[in-house]
Amino acid sequence: MKITDVKTTHFTVITRTERDTDGHGHPGPERENTATMLQIDTDEGVSGYWFGANASVMETVIKPAIVGKDPFMREEIWHDLNERQRLNMGVMSDKVLCSVDLALWDLAGRALDIPCYKMIGGYRDKVPAYASTMCGDDLENGLATPEDYARFAEWAMKRGYPAFKLHTWQPPYEGAPSVKNDLGACAAVRDVVGPDVPCMLDPYHYYDREAALALARGLEELDYYWMEEPMDEHSMSSYIWLTENTSLAICGPETCEGKMYVRAEWIKAGACDISRCGVGDVGGLTPLLKTIHLCESYNMRCEIHGGGFGNLTALCAMKNGEFYERGLLHPFLDHDRPAEYLHEVADPMDEQGFVHISQLPGLGMNINFDYIEKNKV
Amino acid sequence: MKITDVKTTHFTVITRTERDTDGHGHPGPERENTATMLQIDTDEGVSGYWFGANASVMETVIKPAIVGKDPFMREEIWHDLNERQRLNMGVMSDKVLCSVDLALWDLAGRALDIPCYKMIGGYRDKVPAYASTMCGDDLENGLATPEDYARFAEWAMKRGYPAFKLHTWQPPYEGAPSVKNDLGACAAVRDVVGPDVPCMLDPYHYYDREAALALARGLEELDYYWMEEPMDEHSMSSYIWLTENTSLAICGPETCEGKMYVRAEWIKAGACDISRCGVGDVGGLTPLLKTIHLCESYNMRCEIHGGGFGNLTALCAMKNGEFYERGLLHPFLDHDRPAEYLHEVADPMDEQGFVHISQLPGLGMNINFDYIEKNKV
Repeated sequence: MKITDVKTTHFTVITRTERDTDGHGHPGPERENTATMLQIDTDEGVSGYWFGANASVMETVIKPAIVGKDPFMREEIWHDLNERQRLNMGVMSDKVLCSVDLALWDLAGRALDIPCYKMIGGYRDKVPAYASTMCGDDLENGLATPEDYARFAEWAMKRGYPAFKLHTWQPPYEGAPSVKNDLGACAAVRDVVGPDVPCMLDPYHYYDREAALALARGLEELDYYWMEEPMDEHSMSSYIWLTENTSLAICGPETCEGKMYVRAEWIKAGACDISRCGVGDVGGLTPLLKTIHLCESYNMRCEIHGGGFGNLTALCAMKNGEFYERGLLHPFLDHDRPAEYLHEVADPMDEQGFVHISQLPGLGMNINFDYIEKNKV
Repeated sequence: MKITDVKTTHFTVITRTERDTDGHGHPGPERENTATMLQIDTDEGVSGYWFGANASVMETVIKPAIVGKDPFMREEIWHDLNERQRLNMGVMSDKVLCSVDLALWDLAGRALDIPCYKMIGGYRDKVPAYASTMCGDDLENGLATPEDYARFAEWAMKRGYPAFKLHTWQPPYEGAPSVKNDLGACAAVRDVVGPDVPCMLDPYHYYDREAALALARGLEELDYYWMEEPMDEHSMSSYIWLTENTSLAICGPETCEGKMYVRAEWIKAGACDISRCGVGDVGGLTPLLKTIHLCESYNMRCEIHGGGFGNLTALCAMKNGEFYERGLLHPFLDHDRPAEYLHEVADPMDEQGFVHISQLPGLGMNINFDYIEKNKV
């Protein structure tokens, strides 16, 4: 089988979120937006898909690099693109690697008529989810106060979520960042969910050491399950120091560049208690599996960053990750409603809080090709 | 798909090797021996195969554990068996885990009609091989003297091998072990192959530190490429010490128990320059891939231990392993002749020294079922 074409299709979608000046999403007025479908075609008629791609990079860089290759040679293709990344970092970002790799996995699963997690070797068909909130805001009855988080956590428990993670306030919101406000929200959530529900915090990412430790000490008291990225992750020493100074589990790195290599260094140095990685952080499912296996070799959990088809595939083919991150959630948004271009959501969750993986071939995307065709830009 | 049965078939084969009192193989008179085929059946008519299995363990332990399960849930099955291993080490050895895991990989590839290395994600279709000799002996024109090794290395170069590895003399052979004799053979080989051919040594495995270092110093002079396991591998400290004291690359651990976990410790501690692992050392292809990914996260090669269908599959789905180990070879034996129960050898090698992987579905075994049926015991 040979790759014959790499195509991107732009189409309109309805979005109900907007981004603040720092890039964080919040609920917003319903409006039209453009999405992109990546499609890798072969000479045997089967194609693979992923959503999210830069059309010009795909056309000018990826297409010449992979057309003519066997799409099942994913390891060779990934290494080839990864090496080209060095001198083309701006163009060949980890997101580009990720899109290509996921489309190739999807293609392989569709060609063989099997879900990808079973190609890798399945571990389970369902994974418990935690409710992962959007960042704090200033919306009335949104996520503006500790009481708002408490109310939302109460709703999440009723919906069946077995665990709850707060993203708290970040600039440009007034009064942010604030250790006191973060801990206030965390305390309000603990209060309403009771002592037995695992709770986690992902706060402002540029606190200094003293603020990070104060947060950690507060979360120890509240019996929180883990904290993510309270400081710039490029300073591994800060995380060694934090991990040594708190009994709270520190989970990371997440956004730090360096794929499995940097995670190996964090583990070796004792800079984290739980590692963290998602398809989007390291350049696809191929390097995510490498990272998961690295962590497993040290008896370390790798808590998967973000949801979606690729991350759920990994979770169903691994033992050493506890939760699926479902979200980002907000009282004003309905996560159970699929995007217009999909017939089903990536992560259908039952009333016990388990997300079930699709048994469709490939990554499990049930794509509404009619919608995409009708809404082409 | 569900597993419906686990079967073993005993059949006679012709063997041309015999084992010395320490367990090492040497050429011997042609005689009949018994081999065992493991077969895992499913309700959809497809089966997976592997050679080498203890019939009673398969019947009493494995069959009750896996019948009724989906054979594609390899990760779940491997972890289940791995956990049961703790209290049943004598029965549920790594070899048992390995046979079951490989038969399940073979089953999956046959069910999907694809070679397993492409299920994992292919990296290449061929791998350079090194000629890996049997241990030293006392056979005339065999591997009894340094000159014998030199003559054999000369033959190997003509056959196309790009690299050569010696296994030297071990007890019960007279005069073994001997650092002087080992270095004599290594020098004779270097002399005949010239300065540019990578040469490696795998000597007696229970030398003490001073002997191991003397060997290493000698091999530095001879510009050898790596040395394996000159001391008992349960003493990781010895290997840290050896690695610190020589510029020769130390490759290991190989036979030490502990799967990917122990290899992670060796890497973290700096006890090796190159890691080492084969399907038989860690309980299958599933944990071998974990180990390979661990090593890759530290920019470390994982040189694959042993040949065969499972190890070649791994090599064709990884970047960080340089050579296929072809052997064990001896002047009196013909490695290019397949065993009676196979239509083709696992590792056909071209004149440039590349071993080519089979494009048959599964692990690539072209099994002579007629032979097995006719020679059933």
